Amino acid sequence: MLEFCLVGGGFIGPLHAANIAAHPGARLAWVVDLDHAAANALAAKHGARATNDLDAALADPAVGAVMICTPPRTHAAIIERAARSGKAVFCEKPVDLDMQRVDACARTLASTGTPFFVAFNRRFDPTHRALFDALRAGEIGRPEMLVLSSRDPEISPPDYVAAMPYGIFYDTMIHDFDMVRWLLADEPVEVVARTACMLDAAENPHRDPDTAMVMLTMASGALVHVNSSFRAVYGYDQRIEAFGAKGMLISRNQQPTTLERYGTSGIRRDPLLRFFIERYAESYRRELDDFVRAMGEKRAPSITLDDGRRALLIAEAAVASAKSGKPVPIG
Amino acid sequence: MLEFCLVGGGFIGPLHAANIAAHPGARLAWVVDLDHAAANALAAKHGARATNDLDAALADPAVGAVMICTPPRTHAAIIERAARSGKAVFCEKPVDLDMQRVDACARTLASTGTPFFVAFNRRFDPTHRALFDALRAGEIGRPEMLVLSSRDPEISPPDYVAAMPYGIFYDTMIHDFDMVRWLLADEPVEVVARTACMLDAAENPHRDPDTAMVMLTMASGALVHVNSSFRAVYGYDQRIEAFGAKGMLISRNQQPTTLERYGTSGIRRDPLLRFFIERYAESYRRELDDFVRAMGEKRAPSITLDDGRRALLIAEAAVASAKSGKPVPIG
Amino acid sequence: MLEFCLVGGGFIGPLHAANIAAHPGARLAWVVDLDHAAANALAAKHGARATNDLDAALADPAVGAVMICTPPRTHAAIIERAARSGKAVFCEKPVDLDMQRVDACARTLASTGTPFFVAFNRRFDPTHRALFDALRAGEIGRPEMLVLSSRDPEISPPDYVAAMPYGIFYDTMIHDFDMVRWLLADEPVEVVARTACMLDAAENPHRDPDTAMVMLTMASGALVHVNSSFRAVYGYDQRIEAFGAKGMLISRNQQPTTLERYGTSGIRRDPLLRFFIERYAESYRRELDDFVRAMGEKRAPSITLDDGRRALLIAEAAVASAKSGKPVPIG
Amino acid sequence: MLEFCLVGGGFIGPLHAANIAAHPGARLAWVVDLDHAAANALAAKHGARATNDLDAALADPAVGAVMICTPPRTHAAIIERAARSGKAVFCEKPVDLDMQRVDACARTLASTGTPFFVAFNRRFDPTHRALFDALRAGEIGRPEMLVLSSRDPEISPPDYVAAMPYGIFYDTMIHDFDMVRWLLADEPVEVVARTACMLDAAENPHRDPDTAMVMLTMASGALVHVNSSFRAVYGYDQRIEAFGAKGMLISRNQQPTTLERYGTSGIRRDPLLRFFIERYAESYRRELDDFVRAMGEKRAPSITLDDGRRALLIAEAAVASAKSGKPVPIG
Repeated sequence: MLEFCLVGGGFIGPLHAANIAAHPGARLAWVVDLDHAAANALAAKHGARATNDLDAALADPAVGAVMICTPPRTHAAIIERAARSGKAVFCEKPVDLDMQRVDACARTLASTGTPFFVAFNRRFDPTHRALFDALRAGEIGRPEMLVLSSRDPEISPPDYVAAMPYGIFYDTMIHDFDMVRWLLADEPVEVVARTACMLDAAENPHRDPDTAMVMLTMASGALVHVNSSFRAVYGYDQRIEAFGAKGMLISRNQQPTTLERYGTSGIRRDPLLRFFIERYAESYRRELDDFVRAMGEKRAPSITLDDGRRALLIAEAAVASAKSGKPVPIG
Repeated sequence: MLEFCLVGGGFIGPLHAANIAAHPGARLAWVVDLDHAAANALAAKHGARATNDLDAALADPAVGAVMICTPPRTHAAIIERAARSGKAVFCEKPVDLDMQRVDACARTLASTGTPFFVAFNRRFDPTHRALFDALRAGEIGRPEMLVLSSRDPEISPPDYVAAMPYGIFYDTMIHDFDMVRWLLADEPVEVVARTACMLDAAENPHRDPDTAMVMLTMASGALVHVNSSFRAVYGYDQRIEAFGAKGMLISRNQQPTTLERYGTSGIRRDPLLRFFIERYAESYRRELDDFVRAMGEKRAPSITLDDGRRALLIAEAAVASAKSGKPVPIG
Repeated sequence: MLEFCLVGGGFIGPLHAANIAAHPGARLAWVVDLDHAAANALAAKHGARATNDLDAALADPAVGAVMICTPPRTHAAIIERAARSGKAVFCEKPVDLDMQRVDACARTLASTGTPFFVAFNRRFDPTHRALFDALRAGEIGRPEMLVLSSRDPEISPPDYVAAMPYGIFYDTMIHDFDMVRWLLADEPVEVVARTACMLDAAENPHRDPDTAMVMLTMASGALVHVNSSFRAVYGYDQRIEAFGAKGMLISRNQQPTTLERYGTSGIRRDPLLRFFIERYAESYRRELDDFVRAMGEKRAPSITLDDGRRALLIAEAAVASAKSGKPVPIG
Repeated sequence: MLEFCLVGGGFIGPLHAANIAAHPGARLAWVVDLDHAAANALAAKHGARATNDLDAALADPAVGAVMICTPPRTHAAIIERAARSGKAVFCEKPVDLDMQRVDACARTLASTGTPFFVAFNRRFDPTHRALFDALRAGEIGRPEMLVLSSRDPEISPPDYVAAMPYGIFYDTMIHDFDMVRWLLADEPVEVVARTACMLDAAENPHRDPDTAMVMLTMASGALVHVNSSFRAVYGYDQRIEAFGAKGMLISRNQQPTTLERYGTSGIRRDPLLRFFIERYAESYRRELDDFVRAMGEKRAPSITLDDGRRALLIAEAAVASAKSGKPVPIG
């Protein structure tokens, strides 16, 4: 039984807490949050203890792993404290937006021998995973082109946007950059990016890019396209298409029901699942299971800090290309 | 080059005339219609001769085949005149609604050695044909159940309905009865039918059945369901599903375009193709081609008068079951 | 918090136990099973107590509800014992296969004022429910035809089949009969049924019907078709199609992933979800939630013993029709 | 009745000839080809006259229009001869690959007042046209991103490839560049292109690019992605996706039949229509109809030489970007 100390009880925290509670090999032992009420409520629901003092929780020898669900700027510090306490770390992406800080974390994790997992949850989506398996099995031969559509139903609140300029690369497409590396088992050597502000000023008052296209060239020569928007009114649009010498694989969108409605104006199906919580519900369960199993089997978690670092490198290069207008080499 | 005398220039006549004109091995020589204007217009368009005297056209030795597109009650007489003139016959279904009349035609055709084709056009639809081919190839093993949906977008005009009581069996499902026999290479031994008048009195003033379900038991033991309606507001609904020991085959509906429209209320595609002229355009071309080839190769046409007769027998039994409420044996 | 005594720890029991454990308003207090090991294992997993003495569990005043997951022939006796103990009852279908026994249960439940729920789980499937909602909202106007396909991937083991002759009606289509009543808010007045043994003797040694078609006529005049098979090799085939004056609604099948594979031989998607546990996972969660809420709100559960009784009446009539070959009136 | 002189009886010529023959307002009067046998055969089939002397045909005062189906390098000269003869011109794309030659043609057409149509047939595909209509009707608001997939089933023969280096832009994507301009009613201001040789040396001995991705920035700020390959083993892959403020429109691929095959390994549908002749059969008919109507109504044809010129400009810029690696401004 792996006991977790969950840090950060807001937003994605309750989702992870519920998954820990439901997992046969995991237990939620602590909830750490500066907001006492939030910590208490979440802890009470799952029979855990609440605190606003991370050190108190880290001092509990029963705790085997720290799950970090706090805002990104706090991740690195918590990673380092957890590592020094000898706890394994399950960290929401990104590790940090500052590459030097990421590298410092890497050194701490290495010197302490801390198992570390960065939660690129999409790798555990059943359909994306089936696409990955088909690629690995050689179903379409050598992959030649990859096309990803990655569109949110709406833009984040203005203060969230303000806190992370070029969030369309750092926060959204970073998932796609990880998918590209993982699916192709290949690294990009160049990126060209273009952005636009398509939302009106009321929706996007900071005029941070809300629409973007990226073209990546991989070391193998494979070509990759990614597009993103912060306003897909029909739902959370998440598609991946891999084209190769022997065929094509498409991970299609998902809908809440399979109902078809036939009428004089045509045939209508549901809009897409609305947000990532519903769309990737299963992948959140499976990434936790993978981490718990890795700990039980004494093996390294399947997504490393270096994976987080490399996705961030691509995002940085995409921002540089969007700003300069030029292709930017990577690595 | 097979020269045709087309009898009946209204309704389905112009469609057949255009297909003859476009066919490399066929030519439209005569258009026969009591309505001079109609005959002249159609003939002029295709470089044929017009007449209201069938005998005059039948006397033309260049004519090799008669295509019968007149109302059903006139078919038998024209078949017999064509047969006695030594012309091959391509006849719209049904041969006749009176079984004794059909049998008389059969005798005439036999004694004169006349090639005869009854136009169950659906056998030539590319998707239905692909389903047939897959069945014959054993893709789903022995067929065990067949489910057919056969729904018209709207009811025929009142006088048309009045002229053929129980037209839902005699005019519409007769196509499905033929499909059942053809697809399964098997004969029904029993039918149970139920009908309803679901349209309101303004649409269906004669209160002839506009909605029907039929269950057939085949000699092999296979079970068959057919449903029909005269008011499918979303278009011409034509589906066939074959279930067997090794799988299932579905001939799905068809739409004018493949456009998908994504919006806040969901994903919308076109309604179905609106009527049989569009839906079965290709099958009309292919049935003609099959007939022309059969004549060129001196072989019998691929759908016989006996096929027409047997479909009619099933329709008669379905009417008897709908009236009595009881299962009715066939054959 | 509603505390449950679960009776029957095999087969569907663990599924219900896990759903109770995950439900915020429910708790698993007891597991009752004659098999000590099974009871102990299931109880231990969820922190409940195990016993093989139903009375001991019923004596626990904390227990508010009994969940019955035992074989069908034991249901009635447990219902009556639970009712006399003052516990609410959540019972897997069927109540009993003997109508007199069902009626006796009804009297006991009435005299004791026991809340009772029969678990026709399909009513809680999100897509079927969306179809129901659309019907109620009048999206397709008056329903005129209903077509249900209800096919299992494989036949049950021989002893299970032997224990319930005509299980294709009593065990499988009984779900569909309930769906018909619920969706149409209407009662059937007649049924015609036909069956076949299509599986080979190795798979179906008792030669109990493994394939069936049913036609129902509803009091409103609506026509209903149901087909069923015990060997759909492509997965658990569960479709409902409602046709009405203004359109059509289709509850389509479901698949494990949305992956599409394009190759020279065509485009391939997953087979259907394999069995009812996966296919109806969400409906099992939702039916429990509905029951727990009903108890919390002091309202009657949403599926009554009379619903169970009426579905059984239809199944009995279908068996009678299949045996006699004749249409059989209902009610 | 518009009488045509068709120049070039090979490849696409017979398709256009058959469409002219089938069109009620058009007639094929001449077939001009240096290959006597080809000209004779095609002319005989449609009751036209054959010649290898273009001037002879142009001297026929009955001829109203010249249809140019010869190899691209001959287009400009024939356009000019037709223009000077006072005939309208229907020309297969491209006008020419040399921009100065195109401009010279433009001057000749202007000075002679010659009606001219360049056959970007895809504009007349029913589904692409429905997407266009939906965009114009404002269904998705302002278009923000356009994604086009344009993949051939196989590479052209080596000598064809050798005759047109960078044919992936000049011959294939030029259609997409026209679609982008037409659909968005907007002009690109910049292009970035990347190419690869993914086919093996046996298939692509000249190592001309067989795989390409392009990113266009439009004057409006809209972002466009186009990808192409010369080896889509599953068929001719032709998709367009328009994303906007209010939704998304997708022109999906098309298949020969709608058959679905369910088996243990999943659900299989047909591969895509194999080649452009089948896929765009209807658009070829409709572009001819549009041209014939324009002539009858004395209006300018709906696709102009300037459209051909602008698509070529984009292709040239894409080649420049692929060669230099840099973004290239357009116009």
